[in-house]
Amino acid sequence: MAQSLIQAFNLLSTDSRVKTIVLTSSTQSSIFCAGADLEIGLSYTQDTATTHRDMGGQVALAIHNCKKPVIAAITGSAVGVGITMTLPCAIRVVSDKAKVGFVFARRGIVMEACSSFFLPRLVGWSRAMHLVTTGAVYRATHKLFGDLFTEIVKPEQVMEKALELAEEISGKTSTVSTTLMRDLMWRGPGTVEETHLLESRVLWELFGGRDKKEGVESFVGKREVSFEGNMEDDKPEVWPWWERVDVKVPEMEKSKL
Amino acid sequence: MAQSLIQAFNLLSTDSRVKTIVLTSSTQSSIFCAGADLEIGLSYTQDTATTHRDMGGQVALAIHNCKKPVIAAITGSAVGVGITMTLPCAIRVVSDKAKVGFVFARRGIVMEACSSFFLPRLVGWSRAMHLVTTGAVYRATHKLFGDLFTEIVKPEQVMEKALELAEEISGKTSTVSTTLMRDLMWRGPGTVEETHLLESRVLWELFGGRDKKEGVESFVGKREVSFEGNMEDDKPEVWPWWERVDVKVPEMEKSKL
Amino acid sequence: MAQSLIQAFNLLSTDSRVKTIVLTSSTQSSIFCAGADLEIGLSYTQDTATTHRDMGGQVALAIHNCKKPVIAAITGSAVGVGITMTLPCAIRVVSDKAKVGFVFARRGIVMEACSSFFLPRLVGWSRAMHLVTTGAVYRATHKLFGDLFTEIVKPEQVMEKALELAEEISGKTSTVSTTLMRDLMWRGPGTVEETHLLESRVLWELFGGRDKKEGVESFVGKREVSFEGNMEDDKPEVWPWWERVDVKVPEMEKSKL
Repeated sequence: MAQSLIQAFNLLSTDSRVKTIVLTSSTQSSIFCAGADLEIGLSYTQDTATTHRDMGGQVALAIHNCKKPVIAAITGSAVGVGITMTLPCAIRVVSDKAKVGFVFARRGIVMEACSSFFLPRLVGWSRAMHLVTTGAVYRATHKLFGDLFTEIVKPEQVMEKALELAEEISGKTSTVSTTLMRDLMWRGPGTVEETHLLESRVLWELFGGRDKKEGVESFVGKREVSFEGNMEDDKPEVWPWWERVDVKVPEMEKSKL
Repeated sequence: MAQSLIQAFNLLSTDSRVKTIVLTSSTQSSIFCAGADLEIGLSYTQDTATTHRDMGGQVALAIHNCKKPVIAAITGSAVGVGITMTLPCAIRVVSDKAKVGFVFARRGIVMEACSSFFLPRLVGWSRAMHLVTTGAVYRATHKLFGDLFTEIVKPEQVMEKALELAEEISGKTSTVSTTLMRDLMWRGPGTVEETHLLESRVLWELFGGRDKKEGVESFVGKREVSFEGNMEDDKPEVWPWWERVDVKVPEMEKSKL
Repeated sequence: MAQSLIQAFNLLSTDSRVKTIVLTSSTQSSIFCAGADLEIGLSYTQDTATTHRDMGGQVALAIHNCKKPVIAAITGSAVGVGITMTLPCAIRVVSDKAKVGFVFARRGIVMEACSSFFLPRLVGWSRAMHLVTTGAVYRATHKLFGDLFTEIVKPEQVMEKALELAEEISGKTSTVSTTLMRDLMWRGPGTVEETHLLESRVLWELFGGRDKKEGVESFVGKREVSFEGNMEDDKPEVWPWWERVDVKVPEMEKSKL
């Protein structure tokens, strides 16, 4: 399942017909995702301490690296990797009936899917520490989640709201802009001056681009915008500006998957 | 206009008569700042990809480097650089009628004025991602802003509240303290141990200073405090503790401005 | 008093009978901790600018390094180091009558106890900047604290709530898990890919451990869990993954304390 998700996100990332992605559960039951089956254990039996790769993290990275905004439509309860895999998404829409838990401490393991990076930055360290320390399951409306879920709606409205947002984003925004801003915020240089230099460089490159032209012309002309840019064709030369870290699953190189 | 703001903040930064600065709009209309005129394009035609400097970022850095607390009195709607330029301020007071938008994705450009550094840290990455991904304009009271605006009041009370805060800060706090704490939080070393060593050093230096003496004596004597310290005369030797990054506008060196 | 706290946390950290720690005030008065006595000044008269160590920071580090979750039961008002020393705790329970102040700017000094590291990350930079810039005292229920206090209850219920949480955490979670997640979030590598590699390594090591075995077996068997792991015996080899920074009080080496 992790492999299917990774392949899907890699594919949708580069298909220029795709503007926005909604990630949801295959069923509309009260469960969005109950988490990994820990009884199975780690599936790559030839793994070692240094070659093992957390598959939740591989999925999270596929979403994080996807060059389209991803909206999580969390239609029901989400526990463990069921919630952590949604953290790299741009927006999380959740059912007000959903129960959500970062339950790792109750299973004797630790948070995964890059959630030790994402969770504290998304909701602040105070809430994140409380959530993972108790390991309890809370209603999605609980104040401990802060604004992790920026849209909380009735169960039957989750997909409707997610699609409404997807339509708004697809119709009104530039994919090049949203991808670059995601990377500016998550992969920024970390100091204010270096951020200034980087933003200056990106802006300079975009000012000659077709999406900026269309964005300004449509705004001035008071007409609907129609962006055609995509990262494959229109990415600035300065992107990617961060050092690449190899996170490939060593086994994938061989034949296993 | 950017140049005027930069010069004003540089001047107020070192004038020891100034204790607190309120940044507001020249009119009391329903618009605080409608953002940059993107039709004009980038004004420095001899710029290159590496010499271009985003002027919103230059203003943001002038506010960020100003050795006095700056309060933004956002009397009306603020869009684009109209809102991003307020992010380095210590406090943002806003009108409850104001509309606020990080609209960059709808113009085919990216966030600027160092906002990819400031915004996610001010409100958390969850709200920041939603705000910039839709690029929509929201009422200042919208939950997506979290506590970006720590004071939300009626339009006619924005200046009143900003001045009340300015008076409180000017009358009761040490400029040396507020400047150093701003830099400790925004420009800290990033690990808890190094923070401990830095705070220890700063405290040690301040314990011999006149503002600490006045602060404690007035507190013990139960009288009004009267701080006279300022960063020009009273900054600790350890300041600045971060590596300086050159962000000058190359053209400014020559004759252009 | 700082020394007593440090010794207590160091002791409780390694005693395998201890699962969770509640830090509270010795009295049940309306004051939790009124802060340091600044009239005394810095106590180590032979200190220099580079050898001085802020004792609040030493206490904060003892809590931060303690291998058990610490819950602060803030039964009354907390000012200065009275509140900053609680910031490394996993959970803060507070009285709704408590007044809380980061009053450093009103005494001519700066924030301490590593709070320039903790505070902005716990509540976001927007609230943190406002709190320290005014230096004012606010009710614990004030929105400026965000969710710094994840439990706000009546004064007489503070200890009850803290003990209830301690019991829940002690009974249901693995100390190894909570300690490692604390370190993953506060001492993570800072990029998403490196976080993935680290989490993968930690998970790999824990999957062979007794707490994971017990966590999964009890869950599948629908019985109460009974974790016996502790960091002394069960820490993964990869821990600690960060570079150690020497923060010892130089005087302690000699004979002073």
